[in-house]
Amino acid sequence: MEKKTRNLIFGLFWMLLASSNLCIDGLNIWPMPSSLKYGAKTLYLSKDFGLDTVGSKYVDASSTLKDAFQRLLDIVETAHAIDTNSTYYNPSLLLKGMRVVISSPNDEFGVDESYKLSIPSSGNPIYATLEAPTLYGALHGLQTFSQLCHFNFTTRIIEVRQAPWNIIDQPRFSYRGLLIDTSRHYQPLPIIKNVIDAMAYTKLNVLHWHIVDTQSFPLEIPSYPKLWNGAYSPSERYTMADAAEIVNYAKRQGINVLAELDVPGHALSWGIGYPSLWPSSDCPEPLDVSNEFTFKLIDGVLSDFSKVFNFKFVHLGGDEVDTSCWVMTPHVRKWLTKHGLNETEAYQYFVLRAQQIAISHGYEIINWEETFNNFGNKLSRKTVVHNWLGGGVAQQVVAAGLRCIVSNQDKWYLDHLDITWQQFYMNEPLTNITNLQQQKLVIGGEVCMWGETVDGSDIEQTIWPRAAAAAERMWTPYDKLAKDPRQVTGRLSHFRCLLNQRGVAAAPLTGRGRAAPEEPGSCYKQ
Amino acid sequence: MEKKTRNLIFGLFWMLLASSNLCIDGLNIWPMPSSLKYGAKTLYLSKDFGLDTVGSKYVDASSTLKDAFQRLLDIVETAHAIDTNSTYYNPSLLLKGMRVVISSPNDEFGVDESYKLSIPSSGNPIYATLEAPTLYGALHGLQTFSQLCHFNFTTRIIEVRQAPWNIIDQPRFSYRGLLIDTSRHYQPLPIIKNVIDAMAYTKLNVLHWHIVDTQSFPLEIPSYPKLWNGAYSPSERYTMADAAEIVNYAKRQGINVLAELDVPGHALSWGIGYPSLWPSSDCPEPLDVSNEFTFKLIDGVLSDFSKVFNFKFVHLGGDEVDTSCWVMTPHVRKWLTKHGLNETEAYQYFVLRAQQIAISHGYEIINWEETFNNFGNKLSRKTVVHNWLGGGVAQQVVAAGLRCIVSNQDKWYLDHLDITWQQFYMNEPLTNITNLQQQKLVIGGEVCMWGETVDGSDIEQTIWPRAAAAAERMWTPYDKLAKDPRQVTGRLSHFRCLLNQRGVAAAPLTGRGRAAPEEPGSCYKQ
Repeated sequence: MEKKTRNLIFGLFWMLLASSNLCIDGLNIWPMPSSLKYGAKTLYLSKDFGLDTVGSKYVDASSTLKDAFQRLLDIVETAHAIDTNSTYYNPSLLLKGMRVVISSPNDEFGVDESYKLSIPSSGNPIYATLEAPTLYGALHGLQTFSQLCHFNFTTRIIEVRQAPWNIIDQPRFSYRGLLIDTSRHYQPLPIIKNVIDAMAYTKLNVLHWHIVDTQSFPLEIPSYPKLWNGAYSPSERYTMADAAEIVNYAKRQGINVLAELDVPGHALSWGIGYPSLWPSSDCPEPLDVSNEFTFKLIDGVLSDFSKVFNFKFVHLGGDEVDTSCWVMTPHVRKWLTKHGLNETEAYQYFVLRAQQIAISHGYEIINWEETFNNFGNKLSRKTVVHNWLGGGVAQQVVAAGLRCIVSNQDKWYLDHLDITWQQFYMNEPLTNITNLQQQKLVIGGEVCMWGETVDGSDIEQTIWPRAAAAAERMWTPYDKLAKDPRQVTGRLSHFRCLLNQRGVAAAPLTGRGRAAPEEPGSCYKQ
Repeated sequence: MEKKTRNLIFGLFWMLLASSNLCIDGLNIWPMPSSLKYGAKTLYLSKDFGLDTVGSKYVDASSTLKDAFQRLLDIVETAHAIDTNSTYYNPSLLLKGMRVVISSPNDEFGVDESYKLSIPSSGNPIYATLEAPTLYGALHGLQTFSQLCHFNFTTRIIEVRQAPWNIIDQPRFSYRGLLIDTSRHYQPLPIIKNVIDAMAYTKLNVLHWHIVDTQSFPLEIPSYPKLWNGAYSPSERYTMADAAEIVNYAKRQGINVLAELDVPGHALSWGIGYPSLWPSSDCPEPLDVSNEFTFKLIDGVLSDFSKVFNFKFVHLGGDEVDTSCWVMTPHVRKWLTKHGLNETEAYQYFVLRAQQIAISHGYEIINWEETFNNFGNKLSRKTVVHNWLGGGVAQQVVAAGLRCIVSNQDKWYLDHLDITWQQFYMNEPLTNITNLQQQKLVIGGEVCMWGETVDGSDIEQTIWPRAAAAAERMWTPYDKLAKDPRQVTGRLSHFRCLLNQRGVAAAPLTGRGRAAPEEPGSCYKQ
């Protein structure tokens, strides 16, 4: 019913080519585990495939593991209707269930995320075994297991190919982040939850929530209830209960939420509710450094944050601070003179004071790299410096003994649509850092989905699959990473199609970020 | 953390403007009902807001209504965390539940889809009442009710504003379709289900599933198991159980699935499994008219279809048939000569024979308009002619006494990204048809999401919100439709944001189809 644009003979050729190329084999796991061995037998998931936690020390009082196991079954069975009456399989090849043994009740961030997954090829009955020091490791193991499961179009049931499996796995970096920005565009809760689900599939573990910025202030702050007057509209807001729901939803998937309060720049929207935060209404940014109310309010915000955002870090921003409004506004200029501060010193004063407030609420701090570039030796030793301007800063940060997160914008900014997945994959956080102690100070990296042109309609395909390419860089041991991205094209393509099969709107690998497919074709070829 | 591209003062101005413009009032219902009255009281949804079916004749043996009611609660509560301990409300304004009274056990397509929804503003306790002749009407009424529900950011519970409500509603056309195309790109089941969910929100009621085409044959046909050898890859396939799941999933939301078998053109992929269907491998389309196996196979396919696709219609395609391969292939040319048929006559022979096969399996037939344009007076009187080439055909079809569905490509093809929502809204199926009897033969319309550049990553934002604009055209009485689309911009914008809040990736109204937002801003302004 659409005009025939393709030559029929070419189409035929293409189809034969495509159908002869089967991407599915046991090595289509993303991100690639540290170590794996596999065999040649095919097992079948029992229709009552169950969870067994005998021997586990993890109490699972809030059913986090139980729910994760149910999600595993749901995503494995979502792509096709399972035939629960299938009689095709050999009973001796039936995988009856999974034993999950967690040796610690601990579920704090930064602890051991390792796991061991073994699937024997015989037994009576056969059980998979997932061992992990912590819940987080077990959650990762379940994700890996889900990628070993395939729908068999003959038997109509789920099978695990290439058993026996022995996988030993752990992340290379403890901080594997994705930033979302709800100030430039409000993102409704179900959209954020979808992003979190796909993060779990890729073993990313920190959702950096850039909640507020110049454009809008969508979050409720109970201590200062007029702040969300700066929301775009009355309905484009999050209550603190909404924020708690996001935090809890993420936590149950092994993901911590890093809340950001970007001060003193990027904060114009704060003054909609409290205009005295502005130097003046004509010159409203950065926040008024001369006004004690500014710091009182930041204290109130961080106090409210600490009740909901229970990750050990808070992000205090500190980037792109243009202090000219401080100099141009008489009462602020007067204050600067009185305290003998020049503009840079006032900027430093602001950032350090905000750091002290955050520390008083029990947080460690993350700040964007300008704070380090301007007064790195003054920053709290609890500071993690967040790189973004380009390469080379991480080296300096760790040489100075501070921790660092890598997000260089030329490679890991998802809003830069011209950055290909290959560039995301090849961006190495430890570039030029050879000292082992210094390497350990690079706690990880983060891909950033700034929201200028991203709303609920296009956030998923702008993030995926490029963020997944970076996720392997952050998870997989350096020696197992491809030196040439062409070596992983087929596997990433397979993972992108898997995301689609799970309902995630991951874009084709070809073309720019979030590009539509250019022509008809198989998911595995685009 | 992103460069500041906007002038701060301008940003401030914009924010004040945006926050002063509140889109939410009781008239933000999409599509607009036939008749409505409302008041000025605000009611609150009880935390145990329940379904009461006393007096209903509909048995609900498979819990269709019960599940629909649960979905209503889910979508109403999905955008924000509800405070189940809220004590803000006045007990006398509590909406305790909904009485749904269905007067017929019938749930066949084409029956009465009307409903009456009344929400009194007092009572002890207050109950909403939804009356409908059929289940389908009740499902529509639940959708309308869901759009009367709003999260209150003060009480943290769901409220119904502007009670009392009295809504009387029914569709203008009985066939309100959306086409999806799983041949140019495979669409995984969860993606199709998401499309179905959003169709229900807009009261569309036919999912036209263009399953197979030249590029790929993804569906299992048990009678001819090699047909899906024409799939793009082993995993880009639907089992018949998958198809049944789609049919059932749609049916439970009041949506029928129209399966299409586009013959004799658009069928190259069939020959991957059965090459004798091709005139020759050098000249493989249309299907070989001279081969009895072609019709035997169509009979088998339609026999298999009839076990799963239980909608009264089947679509037999019949468009864009280039018969030159018939003339160029010796054995087919010989057959034409033997039977004294020229090319057009052979095309007619094929289509009419396929129609008879479909009728023998109990179907009424839909064919694309070329069949009417070429031999309209020979078509079965059970044929519905499906317009697509442009305007004007519907007039001729109904004048000839046949039924018609309108999908003129210049206005209702979603893959034409340059067609704006305004054009979708203004496309009138009854253009130039004034005779009342003839008007009744236009059973409705359909917007078409051809899949050349649409896969799991971009189908939602290419469909929405433009398909919703057409949905109002097909649902709402002519006299209540806006004569100028600017009159409904705010309401459609509100509906687009509502779709986002429900997790549907509906695109901004501004710009081309599926365009990303151009700059930061409120959902309601883009």
